[in-house]
Amino acid sequence: MIKTDIIIIGAGPVGLFTIFEAGLMNLRCHVVDAAPQVGGQLTEIYPKKPIYDIPGFPSVLAKDLVDNLMEQAAPFKPGFTLAETAIKFEKKDSLFEVTTAEGTVHQAPVIIIAGGLGSFEPRKPLHISNLSNYENKGILYAIKEPDVYLEKQIVISGGGDSALDWAIYFAQNQKRKISVVHRSSLFRAHKDSVSKLYELEKEGKIDIYTDSEVVDLKGEDKLETVVIKRKDGKEIEVDVDFWFPLFGLVPSLKFLSDWGLDIEKNSIKVDNTLDYQTNVSGVFAVGDINTYEGKLKLILCGFHEATLAVQSAYKIVYPDKKKSMRYTTVQGIQGF
Amino acid sequence: MIKTDIIIIGAGPVGLFTIFEAGLMNLRCHVVDAAPQVGGQLTEIYPKKPIYDIPGFPSVLAKDLVDNLMEQAAPFKPGFTLAETAIKFEKKDSLFEVTTAEGTVHQAPVIIIAGGLGSFEPRKPLHISNLSNYENKGILYAIKEPDVYLEKQIVISGGGDSALDWAIYFAQNQKRKISVVHRSSLFRAHKDSVSKLYELEKEGKIDIYTDSEVVDLKGEDKLETVVIKRKDGKEIEVDVDFWFPLFGLVPSLKFLSDWGLDIEKNSIKVDNTLDYQTNVSGVFAVGDINTYEGKLKLILCGFHEATLAVQSAYKIVYPDKKKSMRYTTVQGIQGF
Repeated sequence: MIKTDIIIIGAGPVGLFTIFEAGLMNLRCHVVDAAPQVGGQLTEIYPKKPIYDIPGFPSVLAKDLVDNLMEQAAPFKPGFTLAETAIKFEKKDSLFEVTTAEGTVHQAPVIIIAGGLGSFEPRKPLHISNLSNYENKGILYAIKEPDVYLEKQIVISGGGDSALDWAIYFAQNQKRKISVVHRSSLFRAHKDSVSKLYELEKEGKIDIYTDSEVVDLKGEDKLETVVIKRKDGKEIEVDVDFWFPLFGLVPSLKFLSDWGLDIEKNSIKVDNTLDYQTNVSGVFAVGDINTYEGKLKLILCGFHEATLAVQSAYKIVYPDKKKSMRYTTVQGIQGF
Repeated sequence: MIKTDIIIIGAGPVGLFTIFEAGLMNLRCHVVDAAPQVGGQLTEIYPKKPIYDIPGFPSVLAKDLVDNLMEQAAPFKPGFTLAETAIKFEKKDSLFEVTTAEGTVHQAPVIIIAGGLGSFEPRKPLHISNLSNYENKGILYAIKEPDVYLEKQIVISGGGDSALDWAIYFAQNQKRKISVVHRSSLFRAHKDSVSKLYELEKEGKIDIYTDSEVVDLKGEDKLETVVIKRKDGKEIEVDVDFWFPLFGLVPSLKFLSDWGLDIEKNSIKVDNTLDYQTNVSGVFAVGDINTYEGKLKLILCGFHEATLAVQSAYKIVYPDKKKSMRYTTVQGIQGF
């Protein structure tokens, strides 16, 4: 069991800055994030993109901002539980317990949810009526150990970078011909990847089905055949061991469903008149995941929200102590 | 007459960032500040000090932060009226007019006050009952053109850097002996300055009165004599042409007195539930100058407040248009 003052859900920029502001108040933090690395969307979605609206940075690469925030938080020695999704939430006396899918238990009197867009889930081809029959029985939404599939018959759906990167990987390493199915005739992936894909088709390593989609699945105990329907109405059956529908990720707040939080427009309602606390006392929500009148989903707003939230967090952790904010310019930073 | 979308009162860090956020909303800004340079307290009080609590900067020199904010604001071509104090405020139809002591008139539908601690005024020796009789008739709180006084009899009061810097300047350049009066026996000024002061005393260029203060003033139409009282009770009269009481600066919100704003604890009350607007519609207050429940006087909080304020400013400037916030990461920055 990990015990701390504040459990921060989400290691994005706002979660990381929360560590710093909490540290200034002598509060220790432990951060839980489903991703294997810190930085949230900045690392996951656009690490090499410049951001222009962080105050004081005319331009900063997303990844560099994350590195800076980690350096700023470092004196306060945060703990991290990464690559684990918080799924269970309980209140025991005056303490909250957050448990991950992997079984790690965290305990603290305060939770600050800085969960951004939520956890990311694969976008599923829900138009296929018998989809759920074959999930994990031939259908996989993520490829973790590619070499397991090198002897198998593979169909990949999707037109983005993820789909094409994997298609190219398998075509180059596979003993069998693979198939790529894409709804449009144009691929959204990087130009070089698209050229490479058609090159591999010429070499006889890939069958490309454009203007087509998988519309039906067949098989006894496991997936055996996918039915591909072309725009012209023609249906083609392809035998498979594995179908990888790689349609990207969609954010989800499902992990919060049993927390008893007021949710509005897929965001957590908070009290913006004081401290960004949720309807559950002791649980705060800051950054893109919260909502209130006039809310802007900007990183700089999350920084402010987190700073005010830790003031109230202090009163919860130390109900009998008084503490006034210190100016770092005068005192410098004393870490733990 | 200067016409713009938003008049920003105060060129401190929050005022400067307001230009950027307003620019993203296609709003033009003009900044008025009593100081001759931008940066507010960061430039005026601690330019060479590191700040540790700006998100994304483990440490940044105050002056560098100001430079960065100016660079970030530059694409939106702000106007500046510097070294002029806003003293008059009027509403004419739907437009505000702000006039400086120097007579420059600014007109806009929105005002954002980012005035920090207010304007700075000299700390006066108010224990002297006839002080006001001699102000500007031998008493000066600031030395603008030192060479005017090189032939004069001078007494300087104060123990800080400003008092000693001027004492040393005059002792080195003056034809007459000058006097320095300080209430304590210890000077707060930089060590080197204190050493220099005593060196100049040895050279016969300065009379130093420590544990002493000016308690009375004499003179017909102008100041002629200061009465210095020592700790032991003894009084000494010194003939003077000019007395410079250099006791530092104190912040003042006096310039806001005729604006009709709700003032509480020397700060402007604002609506923190939405947009940091004051009780005067169209006038916002952001940064250290505002107050609301839970307010923290931190630069990062001002950044957030300014960002929300310009959203409402847009609706005032363009009541019939709709505009949704853009993400700079996607679109980049298009300046004016």
